[in-house]
Amino acid sequence: MAASEKNENSHRVVIVGGGFGGLNVARYLRRAPVQVTLVDRRNFHLFQPLLYQVASGELSPANIAAPLRNILERQPNCEVLMGEVIGFDVANRRVTLNGGSIPYDTLVVAAGAGHSYFGHPEWEPFAPSLKTIEDAIEIRGRVFSAFEMAEREADQAPRPELLNFVIVGGGPTGVELAGALADIARYALKREFRRINPANSHIVLVEAGDRLLAAFPPELSTKAQASLEQLGVRVHLKTMVTSIAADHVMLQSGDQTQRLPTRTVIWAAGVAASPLAKKLAEATGATLDRAGRIAVEADLSLSGHPEIFVIGDMADYTQSNGKSLPGVAPVAIQQGRFVARLIDARQRGKTLPMFRYRELGNLATIGRSAAVADFGRVRLSGFVAWILWLFVHLMNIVNFRNRVLVFVQWGWNYLTYERSARLITGREARRAMERRSE
Amino acid sequence: MAASEKNENSHRVVIVGGGFGGLNVARYLRRAPVQVTLVDRRNFHLFQPLLYQVASGELSPANIAAPLRNILERQPNCEVLMGEVIGFDVANRRVTLNGGSIPYDTLVVAAGAGHSYFGHPEWEPFAPSLKTIEDAIEIRGRVFSAFEMAEREADQAPRPELLNFVIVGGGPTGVELAGALADIARYALKREFRRINPANSHIVLVEAGDRLLAAFPPELSTKAQASLEQLGVRVHLKTMVTSIAADHVMLQSGDQTQRLPTRTVIWAAGVAASPLAKKLAEATGATLDRAGRIAVEADLSLSGHPEIFVIGDMADYTQSNGKSLPGVAPVAIQQGRFVARLIDARQRGKTLPMFRYRELGNLATIGRSAAVADFGRVRLSGFVAWILWLFVHLMNIVNFRNRVLVFVQWGWNYLTYERSARLITGREARRAMERRSE
Repeated sequence: MAASEKNENSHRVVIVGGGFGGLNVARYLRRAPVQVTLVDRRNFHLFQPLLYQVASGELSPANIAAPLRNILERQPNCEVLMGEVIGFDVANRRVTLNGGSIPYDTLVVAAGAGHSYFGHPEWEPFAPSLKTIEDAIEIRGRVFSAFEMAEREADQAPRPELLNFVIVGGGPTGVELAGALADIARYALKREFRRINPANSHIVLVEAGDRLLAAFPPELSTKAQASLEQLGVRVHLKTMVTSIAADHVMLQSGDQTQRLPTRTVIWAAGVAASPLAKKLAEATGATLDRAGRIAVEADLSLSGHPEIFVIGDMADYTQSNGKSLPGVAPVAIQQGRFVARLIDARQRGKTLPMFRYRELGNLATIGRSAAVADFGRVRLSGFVAWILWLFVHLMNIVNFRNRVLVFVQWGWNYLTYERSARLITGREARRAMERRSE
Repeated sequence: MAASEKNENSHRVVIVGGGFGGLNVARYLRRAPVQVTLVDRRNFHLFQPLLYQVASGELSPANIAAPLRNILERQPNCEVLMGEVIGFDVANRRVTLNGGSIPYDTLVVAAGAGHSYFGHPEWEPFAPSLKTIEDAIEIRGRVFSAFEMAEREADQAPRPELLNFVIVGGGPTGVELAGALADIARYALKREFRRINPANSHIVLVEAGDRLLAAFPPELSTKAQASLEQLGVRVHLKTMVTSIAADHVMLQSGDQTQRLPTRTVIWAAGVAASPLAKKLAEATGATLDRAGRIAVEADLSLSGHPEIFVIGDMADYTQSNGKSLPGVAPVAIQQGRFVARLIDARQRGKTLPMFRYRELGNLATIGRSAAVADFGRVRLSGFVAWILWLFVHLMNIVNFRNRVLVFVQWGWNYLTYERSARLITGREARRAMERRSE
């Protein structure tokens, strides 16, 4: 099973997960005297920050994905396995796969996070979250087929739930998605329907806290909200979702409850670490935080297990100022690079100073030409921040081909206002047909 | 339900299907004094001749699809409905939808064709055909996950079925797909695996007839076969598939039978017209041919029903030379344009000469730099034919954006040999994981 068994003498590093964290460990180990095996359930690395653009029909899935084998093909000390990790045999230093196991000398677990429905798993079918390509395709189908159904049934009984879109959670994903949906309703579909006016649809963004983008300074939260409202998005702050069904959500704000008819709800709220965190905690005695993240030491290893590292969205890393690092790409990337350097240093009998996160800044975009950017003392909003957002994201896409494809499509979408990648496929296409007979 | 009811006085044309035929009817009616409703189950027009490139990871689905509403948005006399047609009420001139009906004065049915498993529907789960975007994504997943599984299980018991790929049917789809798979095995995956050599996989093309590309002159069939064999494809002529299961196919050639272990079978053989042909035949008394196509008059209308036209893959149109037209895009396009002009002429009290198909030529590509082209007296093969194939297909893609995206990707794929759109998603991704425990 294990590649590393090929070379009996070299140190075997197994990386679980090919996201920002795991991929950076593998890449930064390219000159280290180790045998690397990267295991992922998928055959590609996904550039998650742009996933919402797949959901909104701006980009195709393959534009934000790069095959892991292809990224790592020129790295002879690294092999890629597509497989599902189901547990850890820490005593024997083996990773258990669905149908086999792999030995390791050093283990790096970077399996990321999924969404948490706050103890309401029954909401998931009505309110998909946006973590995988399948999620994005499903949400894209739901959004665009809602307009199709509204057009088809325009002269039957009114169905207000069709053109109400509710996004739960006012973090970056929720804000970016709300802006993208507002662009679709106001511009992209403008001339295309004959019986409905897509601009009459309602995009509702629900946030439990008292401002959007809680990770940003309050002044930028205010600007983001103003930009969204200018696009017609209705922002409900201090508002909780108390139930979600096929044709409505219940909102609660203070003592007030409201029933909002809607067929399209997108969940961009709670985050929960991969269930592998719990398995690893059970195997090592490590502790989990409320989000299911596993507590790591200052060098990102587990207490009592210097040979096991946890990084990225799965790791609960407390900085010297007492604050825990957020689950964002720059954290995972920096942690991945640190762990790779540390593994390399250990092999060479050297030491490294402990991990320290270098805050690079925070960006979020709002619709077709606004964004907010926070670089500590420098704070930007509006068009300049938007250009910066475009540039940063374009430069971080993994391969050159995708950079060109994304650039061409962004240019096209910006100039024409179109959303051409808006296929309604798979389950959602069938569902739209079945709904007809209601 | 019907848009056409908005304008009581105008002639209502309902078009069923937004493929090459139906879309051309709608477009060529843009200046006609009629109200057009185009009904399709999907919200996009699909450029089917390039579908095999989605299956082989060269292009993304959205690159060969264009939203029907977007194509027709500037045509005020035309509306698009996403809906499923389930029957025809010819007496009352209404099309029955899944949940409603639409009145017509003139009906054009262009619902295309699917695949026929020659009375063996039980083969379908093991041998998907290539008609829809979902099919292409499914086949892409099966092809690339076969390599992943082979790599993962390289040091367990040998599983020859993983790296045998069988394509059933030696028409253009089968030939183009075989060439594309050979390119993947020989070039695209060359450096990416550590335990298997993808070049050792076997691409087998099975054809019941005595040559490939039966619609081409025999000399080009021979050249196509030679090009494929040069790429390592094994071509079995005069060979029938007698059974298909999860891990093998049975082939029969004369008295010889052969069991070929394989997990990946692609069905590119029999064609059957949409089941709507049968419904329409029952409603009008028209006759069906062996492929389920409906017999049409010289003006493409149904006998006794001058107000109903059938075009494209659904129509059995016999030319003056006694030959029936094949189910290819140029036939559907020319028939669509003819019907639109005829409807327009009738409205203006004019007549038109009967439909006559203008043979434009026949093209098929074989791998990364060969093709065959038949223009009657002029016959080309090799690199020149391939360049021509590229040019013709690029120019026929519906919108400019997709033309640019396809061009960029073809250039990239040609120069780098890569297949970057090779995501394993959805059902196939789950299946690959489940297989692990076998």
